[in-house]
Amino acid sequence: MSTSANAAHPLAQTSNNQTPLTSTEAAVLASSSVSDPNNSVTASSDASRGQSAAAAAGASELARTKITLLGALKHFADFPIPGIQFVDILPLFQDPTVHGALLRALELQVVEFGVKPDVVVGLDARGFLFGPSLALRLNASFVPVRKQGKMPGPCVTAAYEKEYGTDFFQMQEGAVKPGQKVLVVDDIIATGE
Amino acid sequence: MSTSANAAHPLAQTSNNQTPLTSTEAAVLASSSVSDPNNSVTASSDASRGQSAAAAAGASELARTKITLLGALKHFADFPIPGIQFVDILPLFQDPTVHGALLRALELQVVEFGVKPDVVVGLDARGFLFGPSLALRLNASFVPVRKQGKMPGPCVTAAYEKEYGTDFFQMQEGAVKPGQKVLVVDDIIATGE
Repeated sequence: MSTSANAAHPLAQTSNNQTPLTSTEAAVLASSSVSDPNNSVTASSDASRGQSAAAAAGASELARTKITLLGALKHFADFPIPGIQFVDILPLFQDPTVHGALLRALELQVVEFGVKPDVVVGLDARGFLFGPSLALRLNASFVPVRKQGKMPGPCVTAAYEKEYGTDFFQMQEGAVKPGQKVLVVDDIIATGE
Repeated sequence: MSTSANAAHPLAQTSNNQTPLTSTEAAVLASSSVSDPNNSVTASSDASRGQSAAAAAGASELARTKITLLGALKHFADFPIPGIQFVDILPLFQDPTVHGALLRALELQVVEFGVKPDVVVGLDARGFLFGPSLALRLNASFVPVRKQGKMPGPCVTAAYEKEYGTDFFQMQEGAVKPGQKVLVVDDIIATGE
């Protein structure tokens, strides 16, 4: 739940460019810009206070946003097979306000992780619905994973155990470089046995 | 290639919220804000000049952006079957700058259409890669079309002729309301017969 200074700053910048600032974010940005660079003790103290305030504000905003998102999900019994309670994430994309809240929540979640990813990997097909938007907000690369045979050129292949069977998935060779930090996104985790 | 005032204004607003302004956009916004509301002839003349300047700037930016995007595409011969020259759009998503340019180009293209869509419909799976991001920028709803059996709840079904065969596609019932303007997005149009 901790947020490092390095993780918090890129987010503040990204939010400034891509989404309207909330009053909390504006306050955090303003407070960091008034810290006194000539007094390292004061500046450091201000910065530390700014970071923990930002982390607390982020956690609080994330908690509130999750409630909005949970309220927008739809539940369907016995889909795709009897006994499965299916949680439908598609309504999240129907209302642009909720859609924006989803991306903001994902962004805040990444900040809580404390590591800025270089690459967001999204799984075909529902990971494509928000993976690219999230990558763009994080100024990261987006790389898809698809079923075998869907992508051209040299690919790396892996067997993948799904809730309902095994599949072979592929990623284009060279799409992720050695040493890059990768965030893998898919739709909500299935609850299978 | 014409841009109506109604189409131009929502875009200017969206850009202001979601992407950094180019100097041209900033100039267009500034010029419209200084037109004199007490002098309707001057104001109308300023507005008209602003609109055609915006349309010209948009067309020029779109042309430049398309060149960037074309340069980022990769071509693969004989994929997925011999005789097909496959154009790979995935590199567009690997570089956040190019990815941002793609969305900006799509946004400018919509402005050129002169109608703001209420709903962006994206086809599974490659239409998911940029459909939701575009919908968010346009403050529109995003609605997916998927193969039969993938989505829960009541769906409408249609047969669809693809380059390599026929499929049944579905959309969730009620996702598009009567009278809404719909923009359908998929990856680049295949050239098959």
